[in-house]
Amino acid sequence: MKRFRNILFSLSIVFFVSCNPTETSKNVSEVSVSNSSLERVEPPHWWVNMKNDELQLLVHHPNISDYTPEINYQGISIAKVTNSKKSKNYLFIDFKIDKTAKAGKFDITFKKENSENLIHTYELKSRVKSAEDYVGFDSSDAIYLITPDRFTNADESNDINKNLKDQSLDRTDGYKRHGGDLQGIINGVDYILDLGFTAIWPTPVLMNDMPKGSYHGYAITDYYQVDPRFGTMKDYKELAEKLRKKGMKLIMDQVANHCGLEHWWMKDIPFDDWVNHQKNYEDNIKNWNWKTNIGSNHRRTTNQDLYASEADRKGNNEGWFVAGMPDLNQRNPFMANYIIQNSIWWIETLGLGGIRQDTYPYPDKDFMSNWAGSIMKEYPNFSIVGEEWSYNPLLVGYWQKGAKNKDGYQSNLKSSMDFPMQKAIIDGINEKESWDKGLVKLYEGLANDFHYATPKDIMAFLDNHDKSRLYTEVGEDFTKSKMALSYLLILPRIPQVYYGTEILMDDTAKPGDHGLIRTDFPGGWKGDSVNAFTGEGLTGNQKEMQSFVSKILNYRKNSAAIQEGKTVHFSPFTGTYFLFRVKDDETVVHIINKNEKPISIDLKRYAEVGLKGKTLKNIVSGEDFIWGDVIHLKQKGSTILTTKSN
Amino acid sequence: MKRFRNILFSLSIVFFVSCNPTETSKNVSEVSVSNSSLERVEPPHWWVNMKNDELQLLVHHPNISDYTPEINYQGISIAKVTNSKKSKNYLFIDFKIDKTAKAGKFDITFKKENSENLIHTYELKSRVKSAEDYVGFDSSDAIYLITPDRFTNADESNDINKNLKDQSLDRTDGYKRHGGDLQGIINGVDYILDLGFTAIWPTPVLMNDMPKGSYHGYAITDYYQVDPRFGTMKDYKELAEKLRKKGMKLIMDQVANHCGLEHWWMKDIPFDDWVNHQKNYEDNIKNWNWKTNIGSNHRRTTNQDLYASEADRKGNNEGWFVAGMPDLNQRNPFMANYIIQNSIWWIETLGLGGIRQDTYPYPDKDFMSNWAGSIMKEYPNFSIVGEEWSYNPLLVGYWQKGAKNKDGYQSNLKSSMDFPMQKAIIDGINEKESWDKGLVKLYEGLANDFHYATPKDIMAFLDNHDKSRLYTEVGEDFTKSKMALSYLLILPRIPQVYYGTEILMDDTAKPGDHGLIRTDFPGGWKGDSVNAFTGEGLTGNQKEMQSFVSKILNYRKNSAAIQEGKTVHFSPFTGTYFLFRVKDDETVVHIINKNEKPISIDLKRYAEVGLKGKTLKNIVSGEDFIWGDVIHLKQKGSTILTTKSN
Repeated sequence: MKRFRNILFSLSIVFFVSCNPTETSKNVSEVSVSNSSLERVEPPHWWVNMKNDELQLLVHHPNISDYTPEINYQGISIAKVTNSKKSKNYLFIDFKIDKTAKAGKFDITFKKENSENLIHTYELKSRVKSAEDYVGFDSSDAIYLITPDRFTNADESNDINKNLKDQSLDRTDGYKRHGGDLQGIINGVDYILDLGFTAIWPTPVLMNDMPKGSYHGYAITDYYQVDPRFGTMKDYKELAEKLRKKGMKLIMDQVANHCGLEHWWMKDIPFDDWVNHQKNYEDNIKNWNWKTNIGSNHRRTTNQDLYASEADRKGNNEGWFVAGMPDLNQRNPFMANYIIQNSIWWIETLGLGGIRQDTYPYPDKDFMSNWAGSIMKEYPNFSIVGEEWSYNPLLVGYWQKGAKNKDGYQSNLKSSMDFPMQKAIIDGINEKESWDKGLVKLYEGLANDFHYATPKDIMAFLDNHDKSRLYTEVGEDFTKSKMALSYLLILPRIPQVYYGTEILMDDTAKPGDHGLIRTDFPGGWKGDSVNAFTGEGLTGNQKEMQSFVSKILNYRKNSAAIQEGKTVHFSPFTGTYFLFRVKDDETVVHIINKNEKPISIDLKRYAEVGLKGKTLKNIVSGEDFIWGDVIHLKQKGSTILTTKSN
Repeated sequence: MKRFRNILFSLSIVFFVSCNPTETSKNVSEVSVSNSSLERVEPPHWWVNMKNDELQLLVHHPNISDYTPEINYQGISIAKVTNSKKSKNYLFIDFKIDKTAKAGKFDITFKKENSENLIHTYELKSRVKSAEDYVGFDSSDAIYLITPDRFTNADESNDINKNLKDQSLDRTDGYKRHGGDLQGIINGVDYILDLGFTAIWPTPVLMNDMPKGSYHGYAITDYYQVDPRFGTMKDYKELAEKLRKKGMKLIMDQVANHCGLEHWWMKDIPFDDWVNHQKNYEDNIKNWNWKTNIGSNHRRTTNQDLYASEADRKGNNEGWFVAGMPDLNQRNPFMANYIIQNSIWWIETLGLGGIRQDTYPYPDKDFMSNWAGSIMKEYPNFSIVGEEWSYNPLLVGYWQKGAKNKDGYQSNLKSSMDFPMQKAIIDGINEKESWDKGLVKLYEGLANDFHYATPKDIMAFLDNHDKSRLYTEVGEDFTKSKMALSYLLILPRIPQVYYGTEILMDDTAKPGDHGLIRTDFPGGWKGDSVNAFTGEGLTGNQKEMQSFVSKILNYRKNSAAIQEGKTVHFSPFTGTYFLFRVKDDETVVHIINKNEKPISIDLKRYAEVGLKGKTLKNIVSGEDFIWGDVIHLKQKGSTILTTKSN
C-alpha cells in the first residue's frame, strides 16, 4: 500500500499478459493493469492457517464496482462479491481460505467487458507463531502508559511532514505537536524495564492527518498506516521486537468508535450507513460544524439502563464523539468486518500483547462483543481492556467477561478499567480520617470486588492521559503519592502507571488540562536541562519516587502473592490500613499509616494471617522486621513487608 | 403467658390429677402442678396444618431440666427434648405435628422421679386462612411509616406503666416517651387511607422494658408481648383487623439481630453461646458498660467482601449494635428456631401483610437466609424487606432474592431498601443542573435498576425514622419537596413515606437529630393547636402537600402503569426530566422542571412513547393537556399527566 494516495492520486499503468496458468482459454486481448496501480486493497495482506477461514477485502479504486474479481490459488476461493451501493469505487470481496492454502502471492484479476483487466497481487503470509502464543497482559504485568508525542523526540527529522495537514510543532503549546516518536519509546524501553514495568501502552500512533490537534492520535485517518511523525511501520515493528526480546508486552490503543474527519473514506463513502448521522454530515459537508447537533449525548448508562429511551440510546451510540470524529456505524457488516480484521492484522503484524479499546461504551455494544469475541477466538490467551470512564462499579463490572448480566450481555472483554478504584484511592488518601471518610474509601472500594467476574484482570491506575496527574491530585504531597502508588501496585489488579508519574510530573498549574497532563518527559528532548532517564537534574523526591516504584515493581515481577495471591484486608483502624497478599509461603503486607506522630499498633488483630514470629523484609528499605506483638510506625506513609527473603 | 414474671416472680400451685386419658396406668400419686404455674412456654400457642410440621417449644421454669415431658394427642409426638447445658431452668421440646392433628388443647406433662408432675396445657389453633392468602406488600402498595410513640396518644391511661423501668413521659424531650399508642394508629387509619396509602409500617411495639430510651421499640425485652404503653395484644389485633377491612396491610417491624439488655433471658441465659460476646458480658455484668469493647465495627461490607478478614466479619456480625442491646447468636440452633417461630407466630396471629427486618446485615447472614426462607416457604406470597443502610447499589442488590451473587448467596428477601435512590433523589433535586449533577443523579440512579433482580419490589423512600426529613433535606423548599415526592410515588418501586412528610414536618432545628425526626404528629395529642387530621391550623403549603400526596396516591392505587408498567425515561435536558410509565392504554408522564422561568419543550424527542395527539389529564390539577408538538412548563415543579380519563 502506498501512502497519501488520496492526496497524490495518479495512475501509472503497466500492461502485461495475465500469468494465471488456468486462464489459458482467455483472449490475449485481456491485458491487465499492474497491481501497484490499484488504489487501495485492505487488509493489505493476510495469513494462512487462521482459525477463521474468512477474509473480506475492501478494494477502493475508480469504478472498480464495474469489475468482477477472479482468482486461482490452491485453497482459496471467492465466496461473494459485493458492490457498494453508493460509490462505484468500492468492491468488497469475501474469500474462503481453507487449510490447504499455502503462504504465497496470488493475483486477483478484476475483469470488465471491453476493458483491460486490473490485477492485484495479494499475499498470504505464514504465521510466525501459534495463536495460543499471543499471550495478553494479565496480573503478572505492570503497564507503562505513554503519550508518544510527549515522551521522547528521538528523530527530529520526522517532526513535521509537509504532506500532512497539521504543520504545527510547538513545545510551548500543549495542544500542538511536540515531536515525540516511536524511536523515542524504543530508546526508553530499558528505562521502563528498569522501573519494573513489563508492558507498554502507547496511545495511538496510526495516521492522524487532521488539520489540528493531531498529536493525541485518536482521530485516525488511515487504519493501516503509522503516522510518519511517529515513525514508520519498521519502527513500530522494532519497538514490538525490542519489547519481545526483553520479555515485555506491547499494548495497542485502538479506536473502533470513530475515525478522524479526514479519513480517506470520508471523501468517498461506500454506503449510506457507513458512519452514523451520515446524511446530516453529507448535507452539511461544506460547512461542517458542531451546530448540526449530532454529537453524542455521552449518556453511557443507556447501554445498561433497562428504561433508557431509544432516543437516548441512539444519542449515545450513534452521536459523534466530537465534531472532528465521524462515528463509525458498526452495524454495517462491512464496517464491522473492516474493524475486526484491522485489529487482527495488527495483532499478527506486531505480535501484540494486548489491545486497549478506546471509548468502549460508545460503539454498538453487540458489535463490540463480536469484535472482542472474534479476537479472543483467534487468540484465546490474548487480553483486551475497554475504557469505560465511570465511577460506578456496576458499569465497570458489566463490561467484563463472565459478568452475570441480567440482559445476558457478554462482552468477551478480559479486562475493564477501574475508574471507581482510582477515585476511591485519591479520595481516601486525601480525606481526613473519619468513620466513612479516608482509608475506608480504599477498604470499601476494594470490597466491591465481590461484584466483579475476575477482579485481578481489571486494570487499575491513579492517572492517565485524560485525568489530572497523581501528584496534583494529592496536593503535591510526596508521601501521599507514595501511599497511593504502593497500594496500587500491591492490589489484585493489573496496575497501569502514566509516564512521568514516577518522577512526580504534575498539572497543578491548570489541573485537568489535557495539554498539561501530557507534558514532555524530561530528557526526551535535546537540550533538556533535566533528564529523567539519567537522573540528571531530578530533585531528591523525584529520584526517590523512581527508586520506590522500581523497588516495588521489580519485587512484584517475581511475586506470586501480588500477582495471583489471596487478598485479606482489615478495616481501617486508628489511621492505619493493613492489606495482605498471600500465596503459599509468601505473604506481602501493605500498611498505610496516616498518623503524623509515631504510633504503635497491636498486631493481635492480624493474628489470623499467621505471621507471628516470622521475619519480614521491607521491600523498599531492605530492613528486617520480626512480626511480634506490635509494630511501631514511625512516620506517615506506606510500608511494604514480605516474608520472602529476596 | 403472664406479664412481668421476672419481676413479680411467684408460684401459685394448684394440684390436680392428670386428665390425660391414656395415662390410666399411672399412679394416682402423680399429682401435677397446674398449667398456669409454668413460668414461660414459647411460642405460647401454635397452629395445625402448618407446612412445616415441626415446632420447638422453649420452656422456662425453675429446675425444669430435671423433668421429662410427655404428651398424648392425636398426630403430635415429641421428637426430641434438649436440656439447656447452662441453666437448669430450660427445656427445649421438639414436636412433630402431622396432618392428622386437629386444633385443640392438650397437656404436656413434665415428670420427675419422686416429684409432682408439672402440667402445661398447650393449644394448637385452626388457621383462619390459607398460607397463600397472606399476601405481602408489593408495588401496588404505598407504605406509611409511623413511630408509634409519636403519632397519636389516644389512650393517656397507658402512658406510664408503674411496673416498667422507664417512667419518663415528657413531650419536650425527643428521647423520652410521648405517649403515642396503637389506639392512636387505629384512630388514624382513615386519615392514612384518605392519603392513599395501602399499608402501614409502625416501628416495633413489642415490650421494651428498658430503663431509658424505650420509646423507639428496637430494644425488645419480650418477643411475645406488646408493650403496654402502646396498648394490648387486643389493640394490635384490632389495628390489624381494621386495616384488613379497609383492604390495607400491616407490616411488622422485627428485630432478629439483638434484644434489649433487660430481656428476661439475660437474667438466666440458657446456653454459653446464646448471645455473642456472652462471656465478656457475664464477666462484667455488674459493671456493664461500653468500654468492654464488644461493639459492632459496623463494617457491613464484610458480608460481601471476598477479602474481609475473619476478625472484621466477626466484628460486624457478632459485635453488639449498642451497649444496651445484646447481640443474639443465631448460630445457636435454639435461638434460630426461636426467632423463626416468633416471626411466624406474629404473621399468623395478626394476619400480617409483611415484615420489615431491622439491621439486616448484622445478624449471621446464613441464618437470615434460613429465616426468610422459612417464612417464605410457609407463606409463599408474603413479603419481607431488610434494612441495609448503604448507598452502594451493589449491597442493596446483593440482599434481594434472585440476585446472581458470585458467592451463591440467596437471601430469600423479596425486598430491600433503596438508600442509594434516596440519596440520588435528594442530591439530584438540590443540586444545580450541570453535566453530571442535578437531575442526572435521578436518571442515572434509576438506570442502576439493571442490576437488581426485581427493581419494582424494592422499597424506596425519601426519609424515615433514622434520616433527616425531606423538608429539611431540601432546605424547606416546598416545590422541591413536591418534585421529590411525586417522583418517588411514580417510580417502579414500593414507595414508603414517613408520617408527617405529607405536612412538611422537619428537623431543621438540628438536622438528623433522632428525637426531632420523630416529632409528635400534630393533632395526635389532646390540646394540640394544629391538627393534621382535620386540617385545623395547617398552613396553606401543608394542606396543599396533603392534597398533592393524596391525589397522586389515590391515582396510583388503580394505576397498572405505575404499579407494574414499563418504564421509559429520557436523560435530563435543559433542566427537565421526563419519566414515562406505560401499561397497555395507560401512560403516566412525570416531568420535573427545574427552570425558574417558563420554558417550552419540543416533544419530538419523546415521540417513541406514542402520545402524539392524545389528551392527557393532569393528575393534580385535573386540567387536560393535548400532547402535541410542544409543552409549555410555566413554573418550576413536577407535572404528572395520565392518558387515563379518570
